[in-house]
Amino acid sequence: MDGEISAAEQLDVSRTAYREAVRILAAKGLVHARPKVGTRVNPQSMWHLLDPDVLDWTFDSEPDLVLLDSLFELRNVVESAAAGMAAQRRSATHLQDMRAALEGMATHTLATERGRRADLDFHTTLLVATGNPFIISLATGVRAAIRTTTIYKQRKQPLRRNPLPDHLRVFEAIAAKESVKAQEAMSALIQLARIDTPTPGAAKKTR
Amino acid sequence: MDGEISAAEQLDVSRTAYREAVRILAAKGLVHARPKVGTRVNPQSMWHLLDPDVLDWTFDSEPDLVLLDSLFELRNVVESAAAGMAAQRRSATHLQDMRAALEGMATHTLATERGRRADLDFHTTLLVATGNPFIISLATGVRAAIRTTTIYKQRKQPLRRNPLPDHLRVFEAIAAKESVKAQEAMSALIQLARIDTPTPGAAKKTR
Repeated sequence: MDGEISAAEQLDVSRTAYREAVRILAAKGLVHARPKVGTRVNPQSMWHLLDPDVLDWTFDSEPDLVLLDSLFELRNVVESAAAGMAAQRRSATHLQDMRAALEGMATHTLATERGRRADLDFHTTLLVATGNPFIISLATGVRAAIRTTTIYKQRKQPLRRNPLPDHLRVFEAIAAKESVKAQEAMSALIQLARIDTPTPGAAKKTR
Repeated sequence: MDGEISAAEQLDVSRTAYREAVRILAAKGLVHARPKVGTRVNPQSMWHLLDPDVLDWTFDSEPDLVLLDSLFELRNVVESAAAGMAAQRRSATHLQDMRAALEGMATHTLATERGRRADLDFHTTLLVATGNPFIISLATGVRAAIRTTTIYKQRKQPLRRNPLPDHLRVFEAIAAKESVKAQEAMSALIQLARIDTPTPGAAKKTR
């Protein structure tokens, strides 16, 4: 294909490397390559938006605030339900891992890389404790979302709130096997995190 | 790489085609390729299980019943919440599309390809009506799930139940902008569909 040759030349990469890259983008729904027509970008509705790479690319530079708000909405749905399931299904090891994560957050705070990693571990372990492979497979997406929003929040302003009490409430409900309480505590946590992130006033109106 | 040459030779494909295929599998979390070590299959926890292709491959032959049960659980969480959002945000066009889908299901029944496509359209339009791009991006996954389970159900036994009344209740609540009712109706619909699908008795115990 002529388009392929010239695009590869412009980017100064081999045709093989270029073709592989396009195949990967196509596999993630971002573009479609058709013989004779060439490679075209797909509408956003076809992107695999929850793919970890696509999430990273989407929020890599200045995140789209409307999109960030939508991600919080999905997290609220999935993670709240997951907290309820985790309260029924968690093992002693899951509890241990969540407790260790909370201690890491307390010791290092979200201003450090280690503290942020502990936060991610807390949320990931909670999803793992559901035992549901599809919910667990959303963990990489949730991690990418938390990472982006935490860094974004701190770039705009120092953290206003200590996130530990919210996380402790979730943990205690899960430890006590109280499903509804765990669900409510997680929903409260995510809504507080959402408030801390500047959200676009007009987000709802564009829908 | 020697491994690459011999795998490509065994499969009787070119090295380029083989390398592209591996790159795509790696982009979906199924394998990882490391220099000198070669290509290795990842544990299931790293697969992008909600990727439309991965879903199709997973349920292509005889579906894993424990996995199918987990998928119903996620659908219940996401689609019930989505029905609640759709009740608040749907446009007249969304309602029109859902009504047309219901008519298609009534006319053609789920025993035909056209009827099944109408069912998929109903669920997809409901997700689209949330206006949340991340929830919409789960549509391809939901579609793959419904397609697999409907075909699977009918392979085992003729459909026992007319699915139309459940769908109508969801539609009417969304048309009336009654969020809680829509959420409950969707949850009931998915639980009925789950009952119709033979589920593994020991599923919960393996968690």
